[in-house]
Amino acid sequence: MAKFLLNDFMIKDHIVAALKEDVGYGDISTDFICADINKNKRFEIFLRTREEGILCGCDPFRLVFEILAKDDVKIEFFKEDGDKITPNEPVAKIVGYPRYVLTGERLALNYIQRMSGIATFTKKFQDVAEPYGARVVDTRKNTPNFRLFEKYAVKVGGGHLHRFNLCDCVMLKDNHIALMGGSIEEAVKKVRANISHAHKIEVECDTIEQVQKCLNAGADIIMLDNMTIDMINEAVKLINKRAIIEVSGNVNLKNLEDIAKTGVDIISTSAIVAKAPTLDLGFDYIG
Amino acid sequence: MAKFLLNDFMIKDHIVAALKEDVGYGDISTDFICADINKNKRFEIFLRTREEGILCGCDPFRLVFEILAKDDVKIEFFKEDGDKITPNEPVAKIVGYPRYVLTGERLALNYIQRMSGIATFTKKFQDVAEPYGARVVDTRKNTPNFRLFEKYAVKVGGGHLHRFNLCDCVMLKDNHIALMGGSIEEAVKKVRANISHAHKIEVECDTIEQVQKCLNAGADIIMLDNMTIDMINEAVKLINKRAIIEVSGNVNLKNLEDIAKTGVDIISTSAIVAKAPTLDLGFDYIG
Amino acid sequence: MAKFLLNDFMIKDHIVAALKEDVGYGDISTDFICADINKNKRFEIFLRTREEGILCGCDPFRLVFEILAKDDVKIEFFKEDGDKITPNEPVAKIVGYPRYVLTGERLALNYIQRMSGIATFTKKFQDVAEPYGARVVDTRKNTPNFRLFEKYAVKVGGGHLHRFNLCDCVMLKDNHIALMGGSIEEAVKKVRANISHAHKIEVECDTIEQVQKCLNAGADIIMLDNMTIDMINEAVKLINKRAIIEVSGNVNLKNLEDIAKTGVDIISTSAIVAKAPTLDLGFDYIG
Amino acid sequence: MAKFLLNDFMIKDHIVAALKEDVGYGDISTDFICADINKNKRFEIFLRTREEGILCGCDPFRLVFEILAKDDVKIEFFKEDGDKITPNEPVAKIVGYPRYVLTGERLALNYIQRMSGIATFTKKFQDVAEPYGARVVDTRKNTPNFRLFEKYAVKVGGGHLHRFNLCDCVMLKDNHIALMGGSIEEAVKKVRANISHAHKIEVECDTIEQVQKCLNAGADIIMLDNMTIDMINEAVKLINKRAIIEVSGNVNLKNLEDIAKTGVDIISTSAIVAKAPTLDLGFDYIG
Amino acid sequence: MAKFLLNDFMIKDHIVAALKEDVGYGDISTDFICADINKNKRFEIFLRTREEGILCGCDPFRLVFEILAKDDVKIEFFKEDGDKITPNEPVAKIVGYPRYVLTGERLALNYIQRMSGIATFTKKFQDVAEPYGARVVDTRKNTPNFRLFEKYAVKVGGGHLHRFNLCDCVMLKDNHIALMGGSIEEAVKKVRANISHAHKIEVECDTIEQVQKCLNAGADIIMLDNMTIDMINEAVKLINKRAIIEVSGNVNLKNLEDIAKTGVDIISTSAIVAKAPTLDLGFDYIG
Amino acid sequence: MAKFLLNDFMIKDHIVAALKEDVGYGDISTDFICADINKNKRFEIFLRTREEGILCGCDPFRLVFEILAKDDVKIEFFKEDGDKITPNEPVAKIVGYPRYVLTGERLALNYIQRMSGIATFTKKFQDVAEPYGARVVDTRKNTPNFRLFEKYAVKVGGGHLHRFNLCDCVMLKDNHIALMGGSIEEAVKKVRANISHAHKIEVECDTIEQVQKCLNAGADIIMLDNMTIDMINEAVKLINKRAIIEVSGNVNLKNLEDIAKTGVDIISTSAIVAKAPTLDLGFDYIG
Repeated sequence: MAKFLLNDFMIKDHIVAALKEDVGYGDISTDFICADINKNKRFEIFLRTREEGILCGCDPFRLVFEILAKDDVKIEFFKEDGDKITPNEPVAKIVGYPRYVLTGERLALNYIQRMSGIATFTKKFQDVAEPYGARVVDTRKNTPNFRLFEKYAVKVGGGHLHRFNLCDCVMLKDNHIALMGGSIEEAVKKVRANISHAHKIEVECDTIEQVQKCLNAGADIIMLDNMTIDMINEAVKLINKRAIIEVSGNVNLKNLEDIAKTGVDIISTSAIVAKAPTLDLGFDYIG
Repeated sequence: MAKFLLNDFMIKDHIVAALKEDVGYGDISTDFICADINKNKRFEIFLRTREEGILCGCDPFRLVFEILAKDDVKIEFFKEDGDKITPNEPVAKIVGYPRYVLTGERLALNYIQRMSGIATFTKKFQDVAEPYGARVVDTRKNTPNFRLFEKYAVKVGGGHLHRFNLCDCVMLKDNHIALMGGSIEEAVKKVRANISHAHKIEVECDTIEQVQKCLNAGADIIMLDNMTIDMINEAVKLINKRAIIEVSGNVNLKNLEDIAKTGVDIISTSAIVAKAPTLDLGFDYIG
Repeated sequence: MAKFLLNDFMIKDHIVAALKEDVGYGDISTDFICADINKNKRFEIFLRTREEGILCGCDPFRLVFEILAKDDVKIEFFKEDGDKITPNEPVAKIVGYPRYVLTGERLALNYIQRMSGIATFTKKFQDVAEPYGARVVDTRKNTPNFRLFEKYAVKVGGGHLHRFNLCDCVMLKDNHIALMGGSIEEAVKKVRANISHAHKIEVECDTIEQVQKCLNAGADIIMLDNMTIDMINEAVKLINKRAIIEVSGNVNLKNLEDIAKTGVDIISTSAIVAKAPTLDLGFDYIG
Repeated sequence: MAKFLLNDFMIKDHIVAALKEDVGYGDISTDFICADINKNKRFEIFLRTREEGILCGCDPFRLVFEILAKDDVKIEFFKEDGDKITPNEPVAKIVGYPRYVLTGERLALNYIQRMSGIATFTKKFQDVAEPYGARVVDTRKNTPNFRLFEKYAVKVGGGHLHRFNLCDCVMLKDNHIALMGGSIEEAVKKVRANISHAHKIEVECDTIEQVQKCLNAGADIIMLDNMTIDMINEAVKLINKRAIIEVSGNVNLKNLEDIAKTGVDIISTSAIVAKAPTLDLGFDYIG
Repeated sequence: MAKFLLNDFMIKDHIVAALKEDVGYGDISTDFICADINKNKRFEIFLRTREEGILCGCDPFRLVFEILAKDDVKIEFFKEDGDKITPNEPVAKIVGYPRYVLTGERLALNYIQRMSGIATFTKKFQDVAEPYGARVVDTRKNTPNFRLFEKYAVKVGGGHLHRFNLCDCVMLKDNHIALMGGSIEEAVKKVRANISHAHKIEVECDTIEQVQKCLNAGADIIMLDNMTIDMINEAVKLINKRAIIEVSGNVNLKNLEDIAKTGVDIISTSAIVAKAPTLDLGFDYIG
Repeated sequence: MAKFLLNDFMIKDHIVAALKEDVGYGDISTDFICADINKNKRFEIFLRTREEGILCGCDPFRLVFEILAKDDVKIEFFKEDGDKITPNEPVAKIVGYPRYVLTGERLALNYIQRMSGIATFTKKFQDVAEPYGARVVDTRKNTPNFRLFEKYAVKVGGGHLHRFNLCDCVMLKDNHIALMGGSIEEAVKKVRANISHAHKIEVECDTIEQVQKCLNAGADIIMLDNMTIDMINEAVKLINKRAIIEVSGNVNLKNLEDIAKTGVDIISTSAIVAKAPTLDLGFDYIG
């Protein structure tokens, strides 16, 4: 059964487009080598990781070969998205026509390496924040047209999600506030009068005074932007559970624990996606 | 005038899709704040970098606002793709309706931060290899459906390009050779009989013996895959200008100079794209 | 400046597709009649309503002609979306080549008649609920692939919006609860652990007991589904501002005021979209 | 076997797009509730109507679940498009994974409710006209990009179709005639010289004089636009089977029989589509 | 003003796709040659024909450069679609940036050469049939996804059009008749009961007996399929203006006049499209 | 297994679009005739050629019916792409529902007739050149958006391919050279510094002097454009295997052998595609 947030119909067009991007008018190396090859010939491959990590991207990996080869490439996964994988164990076994295996290999790996990389890196962040009850969440700083894959990988890695896009939660930044003459209260009021009752309002604050105004205005989420640990502590005390507290700005694996200790609810960072190295998964041909 | 490899018609659909991905049913924060704002109000912003780097992505940056706002956001670039940019100078001035500026900001930055990041990181590699006359080139290990932007950024960063996709150059790997009974000569011969005279043939080698077979077969490009410096030196001597020599496998900023010193023509690495950190460009609102 | 929730880039593809749907291989009536017509000939038309209502859909109306004719059809609107329009006044003046005017007329009207119909019908509902401080909101019961237009029209008509789709707010119905062994508390807990902090949770209730469970579980919105006025009154008292209260089920212009009087926050109904008659706008050719 | 006018390849893209419209980044309610649910769990549902009507839309209903779930949702229809359905009988049985059933329910119903609504409403009109040998036909006043579904529903309801779009039949209206100096004869002649011999010409008339001119010109179809019953009777006598006679303008269930009695061939009205209420079909969960 | 049957919105997507097909990741010859070329440099070119013919395809030709270069390539046409063009005269003058001119040249010519070829070849057929009052019409034997361009060219060349596709006119062939037990009357009756009154019915006949049955059935158009001149003469006499007469099957420039002389209305042939040689138009660079 | 250069995922969208182009709102002839036909009825057909040729296009032919009918039309091919076919033998047997067979027939034939036509015509050219060791190759003069099909057919016919598009091989024409002040050496140098090492450079020459400059510049391929046989002979001697030699310009079946005799490697001509008559394949209904 398909996984949460990722259903075949949602990603199929992306994968078809990516296949066209990579194959162009045809894989001239593979097509011509395979032209008269024995029709019973099959490649058998283990998908293996060369470094420890969290697996993510089994569905797009599988779909690359389904689109390319229908039933002529069989994939058996020994692990699923979210599982820890280590260099000593096979992740999946692939058996199929050489032509399809060789043509699809790079693209299938491009998806699973990138997504597993994000899941693996996210896990490192969440593991630090977890003991303090804080969530590490992502941002909208994604690769254009690749957001669904990146957000899914954050979730698979144990991280949490911020809003999906500009229409599912209000986020008032300094420039929004400036347009309302600098009044957080007016800005929140105006937006609340217009948005759906199904949506929340978050406001970005640079100072403790602004935090107080957010409380007055009834903001659902208060974002403490680039504040020092001292300021965060002060804000947490002031807010006192009356709103969800989110910290943002220059979060990294070094300062993360200190931030988490303050008792904030949410720590958002683009790093878990934008700075995640790809995970080194590859094909081991065994036949 | 549009830049090499990147013409508006080639990237417009990508940007429209990315806008839809980010905006969804509408930017509920900005739309409602701006609803009855003074119609003469304009934001003035400097685009600035917070760290030194190579600028890349002016065209997608501009197109985000053109698609969103037609003529209601004006952008004046003080730098162009390929220019070095430093924290002290403005990269561009943006003047426009608050509604469009606020809605488009994140996506425009997503393009230019990622592309400038790749250009900047590529430059570091090419600068090391340049004195030795070697080219640093990219691979097909791209973010799916983002290859054109990534390849363009490599070029802007002074790097060079490998083949675009599977149809513009033959690359015979060990598994292709295995299908021909292990004979490099037979594989090259079969492919050459079929491909266009306009295309080249590259063959991947793990051993010096294979290099010799490539020379016998008349391969245009010989890739030395994961060889030691000693093996590379031996291969360079053996090949002696009779084919283009490419080195690949675990290239990084530490071992790059040693590889370049061997006199090879090409050093290919996915690192310049896959490991490039984004460059920290942002908006400074001045009015 | 473009309107909230409706930007040209979001609707242009829809309109191009609709033009292709209506024009096919060409407007054979108009194209051949206009073939050698005096090139200076222009039609002048007033867009007029034949019945009172709320105008909605100026942007798609305009875009039909922009896509068809670039600058060869000029449209001057005397009213804008949300304005009340009456049979005695012109809504817009259209001047343009006969060929484009005649080919685009029906499609432009199809958008504006349907959208104005929804805005007009929504207004009747909201006007009843308004004095009691209640919002009339829409549902997901839309014409497939026409939701953006329909939701926009609800907003223009003074109504309010429920969630846009399945990813911006949780709505737990009886079947979701059943999957958790009938426990509202467990269902809310499981979902809250997984969704973004930026999203709300709504739960559908049939009984007062379920309402109490929602309060225990901390649901953000409690939907009273098909309850009698007495039950609604009881629920309002019980909830006592601790959650947003939404009423749903067989809402119509007759029972709406009674529901609104109970003091609930939200009254959701598919009727404002699904039962809205189109508004009779048409072209009066004056030259 | 697929139905006339509606083949899977013609509507699949529409349904995929509608699923994306409704699901967005994922059904956060259902996906997270179902995350670790017993894998053998299936929902069993009867699709039932709550009011009598004509069933229409089985194919899009089925395709919603096929696209979402491949074989994991099974649908058995007890009725087919065009059948009369009553509140006491099940229309279909659906058995499938809760995740897919819950996510697809609303969209599948949106198609079948709207299409059955049109079929049901159309039948009421055609039943009135039928005894007099007249056809009730639709118009081009459709929901943009939903025409195929609406025209199909009219046909299923026993109604008949007018032209599909602007390229399959000529329709000369007053403004076309005006461009030819007011001469119906010249207009018909010019168009006939240009259009395919495979296409017909219809002309709109407001007066009996115009009807005579249409006969002179050899129009295939003469439309009597907004004429009184007396005028229609006069026109029918004058035309005397020499052309197909169509009546149009403010047709409703009250005046329809009087019009049909005049002996005209065709009565066209947008009401059968634009004013059709949706039919109240819904899911009864039984397991 | 746009031409009949061909409006920019109908063909723009086709041209964008064709540009992507031809340009791929970029025109590496032109882009790199033009990289630092004097910015004031312009190419001036005359579009000329090297053989006499009928011009067709000015709109797609122009759009190739508009999409590629916006305003940076100016085209002045001295002739328009349908005009006779001869080797001694310039058809258009093109002035623009070398980069755009060189990249777009081939595709712009591909459209105009093929379309002018069809127009020119069609004219030869129609010129033979014209004196006898017969129309030469095309068929559905088109290049897939290029039909609009081919049908337009037939019309521009003075030819006439058959139905556009399968939904605008009925054509009953032998296999349709066979399904009705061999009865033309039953087949026509069944179809007439179902199709729109706005559509015609054509029936294919191999024998004079079948022609008589078509007359009995009231077919609008009778197609004489692969009949001898004698049979055609007999059929023309029998039909005696009671239906449109179309001849089809192995029509060529040799037998065309004999067919036309029989007095039939329509002579349909795929040759005017499928066998039309391209017209040799090319660029003469003058600066 | 799918053929080289042509994989279902690459052509499926093209075929779906072509089906929509041809079917429009439905095949009104076939749909209504087949409405209540005996459900067990099947048509059995032999696909036969009426003239000798080379078969090409089995995959698109098959896909037309797969998209239309899933499993309800079965096709058994007795020949495959590249096989010689003659009037006396069946090429394939098709068994399926009348509705799908009749609706898909024309489009399936449109693909296979055009592609087989090109393969057949190409073979005539290559057969002439083959004994002299020369390759006949195609050009970029294709039907827009049909290139993949046309290039595939050239290959199937035994011909060879030139570059696919503008990004896989450099081709410097006179106007490129002119932009570099007329210097072939400078043009080649500039391009080589920028293009990938994986790509070749071809230069067009009109004179022997230019050929010498190409050799100096190290061009990979030298194109002799519109040269006389004497000039070609002189060029072949001068080049002396130091570059691939291509001849282009007004190649036809008459002058082809003389050109091939000169010992050039490549003879490129648009004729094999642009002038290829379609091959007359058709359906023989046997049941």
